[in-house]
Amino acid sequence: MYQFSQDLQQVQQRINLFLHHQLAKINTAPSPLVEAMKYGLLLGGKRIRPFLVYATGRMLGAEDSQLDYAAAAIEAIHAYSLIHDDLPAMDNDTLRRGQPTCHIAFDHATAILAGDALQAFAFEILTHNSTVSPLQQLLQVRTLSHHAGVSGMCLGQSLDLISEHKHIGLAELERVHRNKTGALLSAALTMGFLCSPHYRDQDLQRQLENYAAAIGLAFQVQDDILDIEGESEIIGKNIGADIAADKNTYPKLLGLDGAKQKAQELYQSALQHLQPLPFDTRALQALAEFIIHRKN
Amino acid sequence: MYQFSQDLQQVQQRINLFLHHQLAKINTAPSPLVEAMKYGLLLGGKRIRPFLVYATGRMLGAEDSQLDYAAAAIEAIHAYSLIHDDLPAMDNDTLRRGQPTCHIAFDHATAILAGDALQAFAFEILTHNSTVSPLQQLLQVRTLSHHAGVSGMCLGQSLDLISEHKHIGLAELERVHRNKTGALLSAALTMGFLCSPHYRDQDLQRQLENYAAAIGLAFQVQDDILDIEGESEIIGKNIGADIAADKNTYPKLLGLDGAKQKAQELYQSALQHLQPLPFDTRALQALAEFIIHRKN
Repeated sequence: MYQFSQDLQQVQQRINLFLHHQLAKINTAPSPLVEAMKYGLLLGGKRIRPFLVYATGRMLGAEDSQLDYAAAAIEAIHAYSLIHDDLPAMDNDTLRRGQPTCHIAFDHATAILAGDALQAFAFEILTHNSTVSPLQQLLQVRTLSHHAGVSGMCLGQSLDLISEHKHIGLAELERVHRNKTGALLSAALTMGFLCSPHYRDQDLQRQLENYAAAIGLAFQVQDDILDIEGESEIIGKNIGADIAADKNTYPKLLGLDGAKQKAQELYQSALQHLQPLPFDTRALQALAEFIIHRKN
Repeated sequence: MYQFSQDLQQVQQRINLFLHHQLAKINTAPSPLVEAMKYGLLLGGKRIRPFLVYATGRMLGAEDSQLDYAAAAIEAIHAYSLIHDDLPAMDNDTLRRGQPTCHIAFDHATAILAGDALQAFAFEILTHNSTVSPLQQLLQVRTLSHHAGVSGMCLGQSLDLISEHKHIGLAELERVHRNKTGALLSAALTMGFLCSPHYRDQDLQRQLENYAAAIGLAFQVQDDILDIEGESEIIGKNIGADIAADKNTYPKLLGLDGAKQKAQELYQSALQHLQPLPFDTRALQALAEFIIHRKN
């Protein structure tokens, strides 16, 4: 029987070790910049995005050793985005994963530069994955850069900041989160796919992207629910921050019960996109369930 | 006879047009994020890095159409670094190229995000250069990410900030600038080289890197000289900022005459590295001369 929590734990251990190795290769004298990069990248995190890379790649016949680089790269992008999002000019958060945020633990300039350097680090890592072809590596760079930038994550964060203190509708809220959270989750799946022998199958890619879109939104809906119902010690960040900042959230637009129903619908939609695939989709099914039932 | 100023002007026109086209492809509703990216990328600049890409690539037999992507990518990285360096948490500059800096023209959050998105944009552009092989594209991503991140530009900026209000020696100052300015200039040359048919010739690559190292330092020495001798209207930024910030500069360590002599020595060294190359090196010779004689 498939055990999701064991699988996730194995992924966490594997990617943490791999990230350690990659960071150890940085050939420079000790510096606050390197320390801040390590702080942002190694201090916990659920490693959902690496899990998506491994689960998708394994499902499609890739070896773990072919997937490590993609998993590390996407986690480096995620880590950089958290460091920058936490800055005073952005979300102004002081607590992340139960620890001081990067600009508190170091300083503002170092936090900005650590984020910048982590982004470059992500793309550099992708170019060292000699277990797949140069074309496969290049397609991963294209996928990750597209989803991380102005057509994805950066746009989402910008839209999110602009929408603060404004009343926006459900369509606009979904646009924010499709970009802010969804784009990178989608990139994780696609990068796992690109490491596999099926990497030219565009129908399969689209099917996986549909699944990714559903769990991406579900992830955000659950995040919003946890900001109301969660416990600060479990989540590792301050509770009620969305309400305090008058943020647009699914519970605000749909009510708490409506948001929970929305999460359920997205879960069902995710499963439906997996159903026709001629592969063992248990890990991706379990991840979708985890996303809407997680407590942190 | 070779006319440097005409050549530079042609490069400026070509790259500005290409950048316009690439920015126009961003498929999103109008947003402050996109406007800030355009502001940072299109508002003037000498386009020295694109010039290095074209001059090197042309010298080695590449077509301009093979070099456009690399030139655009490196300028996008340069533009993002200026936006972030100007932030209050970093150099706190309000004027750049005679215009308000990005965080003044927009806001802090948008400036941070525009820089982040420009970095992703740079790597995405490199993956669309189908005029060279996937391997050549990938090697360019590796070169640019390596030189832009913790082993290059980001490290240099971090070291520069740390060294403020401290007295450092010449070796440490050179380490700052080899990374802060030199790394990206070196990447520009290498990317031009990587677009050419000679891209596997590692001896040639090393020779070009030696030239790049010399002009990279010369560029910084001249920058420091201009901060003392230059005119604000010509440079487009505030004069005397280094002295006001008690920055470590070549004139501070060597005196103004010593700094000028240093620039001359680096110029001669750059020429010596070009001398044995069996190619038409006039454009690179002229650039080295321009770097130490420029007024802005």
